[in-house]
Amino acid sequence: MVGPTDAPPSGRRRRNPQATREEILAAARTVLASDGPDGLSLSRVAHLAGVNRGTAYQHFETRDDLIQATVDWVSEHLLQRIFGDNDEGDGQPHNRPIFEAISILVDFAVENPELGRIWLFSVMSSDNPGENAFFRRFAQSTRDLAESEHSEEGIDAEALSVVMLAGYFLWPLWVRANSRTTREREAMTRRMRREMLRLMMHGVVRAESFPHLQQLLDDSAPQKSR
Amino acid sequence: MVGPTDAPPSGRRRRNPQATREEILAAARTVLASDGPDGLSLSRVAHLAGVNRGTAYQHFETRDDLIQATVDWVSEHLLQRIFGDNDEGDGQPHNRPIFEAISILVDFAVENPELGRIWLFSVMSSDNPGENAFFRRFAQSTRDLAESEHSEEGIDAEALSVVMLAGYFLWPLWVRANSRTTREREAMTRRMRREMLRLMMHGVVRAESFPHLQQLLDDSAPQKSR
Repeated sequence: MVGPTDAPPSGRRRRNPQATREEILAAARTVLASDGPDGLSLSRVAHLAGVNRGTAYQHFETRDDLIQATVDWVSEHLLQRIFGDNDEGDGQPHNRPIFEAISILVDFAVENPELGRIWLFSVMSSDNPGENAFFRRFAQSTRDLAESEHSEEGIDAEALSVVMLAGYFLWPLWVRANSRTTREREAMTRRMRREMLRLMMHGVVRAESFPHLQQLLDDSAPQKSR
Repeated sequence: MVGPTDAPPSGRRRRNPQATREEILAAARTVLASDGPDGLSLSRVAHLAGVNRGTAYQHFETRDDLIQATVDWVSEHLLQRIFGDNDEGDGQPHNRPIFEAISILVDFAVENPELGRIWLFSVMSSDNPGENAFFRRFAQSTRDLAESEHSEEGIDAEALSVVMLAGYFLWPLWVRANSRTTREREAMTRRMRREMLRLMMHGVVRAESFPHLQQLLDDSAPQKSR
C-alpha cells in the first residue's frame, strides 16, 4: 500500500511531503507575522511557499488547521528552546535556566508579536488550556519551583503561570506601539527581561538561594527617585 | 440654534439622546459579552436597544466606533470604581485600596471576560496605549507606589503594569475554560485575588509596610507540600 509519505512528486522538483508541510507552515508564520490572522488565506500561503493550492489543501484543510498547526509549532519551539536539554529535575536551584528561560521567552515574544499573541489567545480560549504541551510544562516547572525549598510560601503556580505568560506575550504589543527604532525596541526588551527576573526573584523564589542572579539584578537596577 | 441634544423625539416615546446612546452602548456590551466582536453588528445592537438602525447610526457610524466606545466605557468604569474616591496621593500606604483594587479588577474581569479581552487587546494594539485613561492612571499609581519608601527597589512600573493588567484580563479565559460550576468559578476568582495580592506583597511592596494585608495572606495560604 502506498501511504501519503510515499506519494510520487507532483511538481517539477521531487518533494518530501514532510518538507513541503514545513515550507507551508513557515510561509504561514511569515503571513501571520506581517498581517495577523486576518491576512491569512490558504492560497496566499501556498503561493508564498511555492506550492499549488491543491498541495496546500492536502496538508491543511482549512485556515483554522493552519492556525492550529502554527500554535503547535510555537509550543514545540518554546518547549525545545526552554526545556529541551534542561530537564534535570533534581530540585536544585539553577541560576542559568531561570534567567535563560526568561530571556528566551521575552526575545521570542518581542521578535514574534503576532505568533505570541495567536498562541496566547488560542491556548487561553481553548476548551482545555492545560493540555497545551508548552503551557503544561511551563506550569509544571513553576509548580516544581513553588514546592521546593527555594521558593516563597503559598504560591498558586497555575495562576502565576497564566499571569507570567500573559505578560510575556502582551508586552511586545506595548513595545511595538512605543518604540520607533531598533535601539528603542532593544531597550524595551532588556527592561522586560529585567522586570520579569525582578518579579521572579522577589515575588517567587527566595533571593538568597540565587545570589548570582540577585547580583545581576542589583547591578542593573535603575536608581529610585525619592 | 438647535443642537443635537435638543432634537425633537423621532420615535413613539420622547428620547433623550444621551440616554439613547447609553442604551445602545449597553446593548453592545450585552452582544459583546455573549458573542464577542464577531457577533457584533449595528443592526443587532439597534434591535436589542429598541431603536431603529438610523438612530443607532446617528450615534455610531461604524462597528469600530461602537467597539471603541465600549473600550472607553470599560476604562471609565474601572477608573471610577478603582480610583474614583481614592485619590489621596499622600504617599501613605493604604491597606484597603490595594486589596480593593485587586478585587475590583479580578471580579470585573471574571464577570466580563469578553469586555476585558477587548479592552486589553484594543489598548495594547493601539498606536499609543499610554494614552488610555485607565492604563495611564493604573501605571501612575504603580509608579507612585514604586517610588515610595513602601516598595522594593528597581521596579519598572510600566512593564509591571502591563504584566499585571495582562494577567488580570487573561485569567478569566482560563477560568471559563476550567470551571463548570458557579462554585468552581468563584474558587478560581478567589485564587486569582489571592495570587495577585501575594505577588504584590512579595514582588512589589515591602510586606512590613502592610502588616494587615500580610496577615490576610498568611491566613489564607495553602499548605506547601514538601
